[in-house]
Amino acid sequence: MNIHGKHYQSLEFDSENGVLAILDQTLLPFEVKWLTLMTLDDVCHAIAHMQVRGAPAIGAVAAYGIVLAIKGKIPLSYSAQKLKATRPTAVNLAWAVDRMLGRLADCADEYAYSAACDEAGKIATEDVAASSSIGDAGLAIIESILAKKKEACVNILTHCNAGWLATVDWGTALAPIYKAFQKGIDIHVWVDETRPRNQGASLTCFELQQQGVPHTLIADNTGGYLMQSGKVDLCIVGSDRTTANGDVCNKIGTYLKALAAADNGIPFYVALPASTIDWNMASGKDVPIEYRDADEILTVTGRNKENLLETVRIAADGVAALNPAFDITPARYVTGLITEYGVFSASTEALQVLKDTLDNAQ
Amino acid sequence: MNIHGKHYQSLEFDSENGVLAILDQTLLPFEVKWLTLMTLDDVCHAIAHMQVRGAPAIGAVAAYGIVLAIKGKIPLSYSAQKLKATRPTAVNLAWAVDRMLGRLADCADEYAYSAACDEAGKIATEDVAASSSIGDAGLAIIESILAKKKEACVNILTHCNAGWLATVDWGTALAPIYKAFQKGIDIHVWVDETRPRNQGASLTCFELQQQGVPHTLIADNTGGYLMQSGKVDLCIVGSDRTTANGDVCNKIGTYLKALAAADNGIPFYVALPASTIDWNMASGKDVPIEYRDADEILTVTGRNKENLLETVRIAADGVAALNPAFDITPARYVTGLITEYGVFSASTEALQVLKDTLDNAQ
Repeated sequence: MNIHGKHYQSLEFDSENGVLAILDQTLLPFEVKWLTLMTLDDVCHAIAHMQVRGAPAIGAVAAYGIVLAIKGKIPLSYSAQKLKATRPTAVNLAWAVDRMLGRLADCADEYAYSAACDEAGKIATEDVAASSSIGDAGLAIIESILAKKKEACVNILTHCNAGWLATVDWGTALAPIYKAFQKGIDIHVWVDETRPRNQGASLTCFELQQQGVPHTLIADNTGGYLMQSGKVDLCIVGSDRTTANGDVCNKIGTYLKALAAADNGIPFYVALPASTIDWNMASGKDVPIEYRDADEILTVTGRNKENLLETVRIAADGVAALNPAFDITPARYVTGLITEYGVFSASTEALQVLKDTLDNAQ
Repeated sequence: MNIHGKHYQSLEFDSENGVLAILDQTLLPFEVKWLTLMTLDDVCHAIAHMQVRGAPAIGAVAAYGIVLAIKGKIPLSYSAQKLKATRPTAVNLAWAVDRMLGRLADCADEYAYSAACDEAGKIATEDVAASSSIGDAGLAIIESILAKKKEACVNILTHCNAGWLATVDWGTALAPIYKAFQKGIDIHVWVDETRPRNQGASLTCFELQQQGVPHTLIADNTGGYLMQSGKVDLCIVGSDRTTANGDVCNKIGTYLKALAAADNGIPFYVALPASTIDWNMASGKDVPIEYRDADEILTVTGRNKENLLETVRIAADGVAALNPAFDITPARYVTGLITEYGVFSASTEALQVLKDTLDNAQ
């Protein structure tokens, strides 16, 4: 994707110097600043403080966390444990770390760094390919909706940020949107603000603005009304973890939009790489939900009149707040799962077909 | 209700000097400041800028707007039109203004001011009585839910502010909560932040804190997850306009919570004075929805580190936003309408019974 017209991926690794560069997502959209991560601690801090977020992106960054741990001669098991503890909900984090451990299991120490660089590089490269394939599969859905519409414009609602910033490139939920836009399809995106951290307002709007895709920011409360009013043709969101039965764990508030889509007969798709599927978890009720700091609810950060980032408090002192970061959308409200292997029903049976494909490929 | 332990109503009128005092709700919870409104223009400005909001409250304040217009020798028809144009959705505004016009229709000029004072006073007094009765009717619902629960605490979710500040006293959705709390029932309130204007965070939390009612602020995205998790026993919200078939127009986002309540088998009640019912409107699809300034979406106002109110921008320059202020909850998702005349099903038939009662009383 482009920033100010120049193409970037959301992370760049310099293997010679052992330096990982990522965009600091806590400063967007107001400041485009690349962070350099040189140690395991740097990576853990960046993930825990959401300087990088989005399931596929934190998977790839965690893989490079293992690379930097090897560079720093930190024991692998300790590094793996520390990385996995940064955020509990997204399954990619553990998936990527375990994949790195698997690659390094029988590797002599002298080759460990180059093997780790290679494997992390593969994870990143595969993520780009997966996102692009998700984009193509989702594009076909957009085209079929367009074919049935009287007007030329397709209105798509998305929640949180499941774009380029949440992956290595392209995105998951936004990949079909970018593909459609590149193909010249008249498209418009409703962007949920996504309180408490406003990833919609700050990240998704930033991405869409940089690519030139028409979009409108709305409060999280608004999507239901727009669906009632016939102003949404399709919802696409990402997923932090999808369980074997097709239940989708994603940013808090996703479930409410899925309910509204079902109530109004609007397709509700979830876009995700297969690495986001937790084959060992039978249903969404078992997903560990991360609870974040209450201050995220009690405050909002934005740009003040002096163009500086400032945090303001929106409730009186002494008010308590609760901040679960994710919710579960039951499979019955999911029209389909858009993956790099095609579109699957959100059901145990359909996902078993995908699992068999993956198992046979190994 | 109390502020710092002292009882107040949300408006006070000094008929001798023709001065209406209201709390400036745009400064809460950080500053408790009474505004003095002396002219029709003052009243229109206060309503349009939401220094006073909430359907019953703006009805009562609009009634005093007619009083101040008479004091200022402004023609009644012009005043009525100007007041009605301040905000389009809440039906109480038009209801109160029309009631004032009815009272003044055959009134000699020399008696107009005292007649207007009397009628506006009646509207305010009746609103207090209605809110108190709504509280009693809702209390019975809370008690019946408590009787079925294993734990002693009843968890109630509310959206926006339908409390004391939205009425003359007691509130609508919050009245049952205050009655239950006064009766010693163990109660806890989940308060939706209610973007874009954060009436939950700033007004409902303020009220509950001042009364000592346990509460927790949550993002608007969170209620569905709490319902899935069994942490909500009951939802109660207010209404800006309820149509003759029981459809409920209320603050944007109400519909999403009603869907989640239905999906999880949780009762979803709407508390409203009968003056909020638009008998002439067959269904919710005809309610005019107010669109407010996009800046309400693009910015958030709160208290900065220097304890001053500050507005920060949460999206990049050039981002467009859409800001409909209300949505429609279809009657089928409403468990019951809590009114000063008791609890009614949200249906044409049940509401007709209420209408017949009201018509017979006239």
